[in-house]
Amino acid sequence: MVHAYDALLAHQRATSLLGSTAALLAWDQETQMPRGAGDVRAQQLSQLAELQHERATDPRVAEWLSQCAADARVQQDADRAANVREWQRDHDRATRLPSALVAELAEVESKAQQAWAEARSRDAFAKFRPWLDRMVALQQQKADCLKRPDQSRWDALADLYEPGMNAADLRALFAPLRTALVALRDRLRGGTPPTDAFARQPIAEAQQESFVRAVLAAMGFDDKRGRLDRSAHPFCTKVGADVRLTTRFRPEAVLDALGSTMHEGGHGLYEQGFDDAHFGTPLGEAVSLGVHESQSRLWENHVGRSLAFWQWCLPIAQKQLGGWRDVDAMAVFRAVNVVRPSLIRVEADEATYDLHVMVRFEIEQQLIDGQLGTSNLPGEWNRLYREYLGIAVPDDKHGCLQDVHWSCGLFGYFPTYTLGNLYAAQFAAAADKALGGLPALLERGQFTTLREWLRRQIHRHGRRHSPAELCRLVTGAPLSSAPFLQHLEKKLAVVYGI
Amino acid sequence: MVHAYDALLAHQRATSLLGSTAALLAWDQETQMPRGAGDVRAQQLSQLAELQHERATDPRVAEWLSQCAADARVQQDADRAANVREWQRDHDRATRLPSALVAELAEVESKAQQAWAEARSRDAFAKFRPWLDRMVALQQQKADCLKRPDQSRWDALADLYEPGMNAADLRALFAPLRTALVALRDRLRGGTPPTDAFARQPIAEAQQESFVRAVLAAMGFDDKRGRLDRSAHPFCTKVGADVRLTTRFRPEAVLDALGSTMHEGGHGLYEQGFDDAHFGTPLGEAVSLGVHESQSRLWENHVGRSLAFWQWCLPIAQKQLGGWRDVDAMAVFRAVNVVRPSLIRVEADEATYDLHVMVRFEIEQQLIDGQLGTSNLPGEWNRLYREYLGIAVPDDKHGCLQDVHWSCGLFGYFPTYTLGNLYAAQFAAAADKALGGLPALLERGQFTTLREWLRRQIHRHGRRHSPAELCRLVTGAPLSSAPFLQHLEKKLAVVYGI
Repeated sequence: MVHAYDALLAHQRATSLLGSTAALLAWDQETQMPRGAGDVRAQQLSQLAELQHERATDPRVAEWLSQCAADARVQQDADRAANVREWQRDHDRATRLPSALVAELAEVESKAQQAWAEARSRDAFAKFRPWLDRMVALQQQKADCLKRPDQSRWDALADLYEPGMNAADLRALFAPLRTALVALRDRLRGGTPPTDAFARQPIAEAQQESFVRAVLAAMGFDDKRGRLDRSAHPFCTKVGADVRLTTRFRPEAVLDALGSTMHEGGHGLYEQGFDDAHFGTPLGEAVSLGVHESQSRLWENHVGRSLAFWQWCLPIAQKQLGGWRDVDAMAVFRAVNVVRPSLIRVEADEATYDLHVMVRFEIEQQLIDGQLGTSNLPGEWNRLYREYLGIAVPDDKHGCLQDVHWSCGLFGYFPTYTLGNLYAAQFAAAADKALGGLPALLERGQFTTLREWLRRQIHRHGRRHSPAELCRLVTGAPLSSAPFLQHLEKKLAVVYGI
Repeated sequence: MVHAYDALLAHQRATSLLGSTAALLAWDQETQMPRGAGDVRAQQLSQLAELQHERATDPRVAEWLSQCAADARVQQDADRAANVREWQRDHDRATRLPSALVAELAEVESKAQQAWAEARSRDAFAKFRPWLDRMVALQQQKADCLKRPDQSRWDALADLYEPGMNAADLRALFAPLRTALVALRDRLRGGTPPTDAFARQPIAEAQQESFVRAVLAAMGFDDKRGRLDRSAHPFCTKVGADVRLTTRFRPEAVLDALGSTMHEGGHGLYEQGFDDAHFGTPLGEAVSLGVHESQSRLWENHVGRSLAFWQWCLPIAQKQLGGWRDVDAMAVFRAVNVVRPSLIRVEADEATYDLHVMVRFEIEQQLIDGQLGTSNLPGEWNRLYREYLGIAVPDDKHGCLQDVHWSCGLFGYFPTYTLGNLYAAQFAAAADKALGGLPALLERGQFTTLREWLRRQIHRHGRRHSPAELCRLVTGAPLSSAPFLQHLEKKLAVVYGI
């Protein structure tokens, strides 16, 4: 007789393998697929999603899980017990959602996203509003299926992306952070803004590409198990054993190409950092979106926007880009840290980015928990942008229609971006302490020392610990905004001379 | 109640959709996948193959098929009747093979291919021989499951690739062809060999690429539903709604890049030429490998190696390649038609290619039907190369170890290459007659007129007719080697001045 754990393991690995094939379909769609193939691609993706859902809700999974729960040999083995705990969590979720709701969500997500794209291009919120209403209602139904008694609807959705996260804890974390960021924003007005004109000179794509590839290789990204391509919106995905990153190139935006590459490279190192022995199980998967984002932001901001990094990187940039001869590392360091409150989240600097996230958190929590109707969305959006970022929103295209997330049914997702920034700062401070000073490593280009530390401390654990436990284990403290604010204030004092 | 035909259609379309996802996995493996991802990719492919096989042998398929066979509404509808006939054929085959044999074949194919690659690189036939023995034995078992009373084992395997093909008919077709090709080979020795030195000057890859892309676009290949990439061995595959071609570039081999592109482009036009209404059904699939190859060879040889084509193409080549200023269309026409008996099939010219195929046909038929043991394979190979091609084989690497096919279990496949050449010549002659002379179209670059004729006459039919019926319908005659020999002799008389 096959042990229940082994049967469950084989079943779940096969399901995960199917998921990796779906990941290839999605990657190919964004990077390679000719535009006339979209309809069939949607069918291919939906077929694999259905097969995965069938497997995830297979009644045998529940049987195997209960046998494993009662089996001392499983429960006394830390790896197996952790996998069983996480499989149980995944199974509960999958089985709580009725198939009809899953199918309706899939259909409305696809249609609402098209409606959103059209509404955004025409700056016509009214065209999108009926879809948003329908989506909010469906997400409320979904939340009702998922939520525990102690959770609000929004909490139940957020828990999908960041296990253990809830609105009350986030408010406690975000309120002082917002006050400090708004104060910082005002204080910088009295400083000397850096110039970044040199970095906006047009540079040929081939040169930008060899530059960012050199940095990615130095980060220790393994190109035998990964690749870098182009797409309109940079992303990272894992296709079985290999990790695929994308970046984008515009002639006058080499710093954006570098930042995107280091950001996605950080995600990629996380995905390359799991233990092969745990392939296809929770111990070989990312613990949360917040922790995933911490890995991208750590490399993008704590490495790529540091003075020490540019002391190492400037000669490489000069060689690969064939320019930047008249600047020194300090000048590039200042240029990559310009703070300019702006309308668009994905173009925001490190000091104002989280204010964009907080606007979305306030609004989506109220939409899902019922305090705000969609008719009041643009007004509330614009009011919060004035309050948090100090800027006026000219139209919905540059306002509440800018992000794709809500049209895809992603409610409870936005705060993971800010959690990522906070985790990144707290992890970077811990690494700095553990490794005897990060700047000394970075200025010598010893990035793999940092990668190995991250791998040991974070990547290798997969979903063994909750995000909160992981944070305590790695940093000795619960998540706080203090390390992030210290990092920002220390850095911007130099950059702005305040 | 759902009509049996509709249920069957939905089932088969979903199976076909799964096959298109498997095609993406395979395409990606050859063109994009990092080399460290091979093991997981093999698992992904094998999982989808298993899912497809499960669906193909689903007992409901047999029920639906028998209901359709008894349903006048189906049998009186030409499209439905043709689909049901072909589904029945596919189902019979899939269910005749025991799962254990399918699994063993898959495993041995994978291992034998690795053994072959190593044996080839070391020129060590003895290392491959045990795998070949095992493979031949498995193929014999497979043939025993499949064969009808009137078929030999080899016939049963060949029928998988070319419905209706058998060894006796092939011998009748090939014997006079071989005599004529050997005589032609000897006659050319008395002619004036063309020079192709100008075409071997190194040309940068980017220029070669824009050249071959210009020709592919002129052929009418639709890049909204297709793309062209690079791979070590050029191929064409369909990934759902889009068709993916590859070619290869070497500095001194621009004619090879062009020939490969036009060859794969011909396959691609066939795959783009099915009726969308028949997507995922036999009426939207290629009828045989021979007919598929006819489409590639027609474009590669009857278009790309014609004087009229080069009258149109030379100015484009001169512009894109930035050279070839001292040659005229006649010189290029002569250069692309050099005949040089050689050791390697994939590098063979149009006049000796089929002699390579006939060597393989003789040998594999005897291996499978039991007249030849693998210990005598190298000797027999070398003897036939001397007899058919007039050349001595120096080692097995350049001899019986050169092709991957047998290691992958492809027995009965080689003759489809020659059938492709014969169909191509017969179809080209019919097109010439129907369109008022091909040269007049080609010299003006009016390739889409030819594409539309092929689409109407051949592509649109999918698997509606057998290959033999299709040949009669398109050309008014059964397949013969006469048009091919006439084409070759007429052309080479000009090229060699004989």
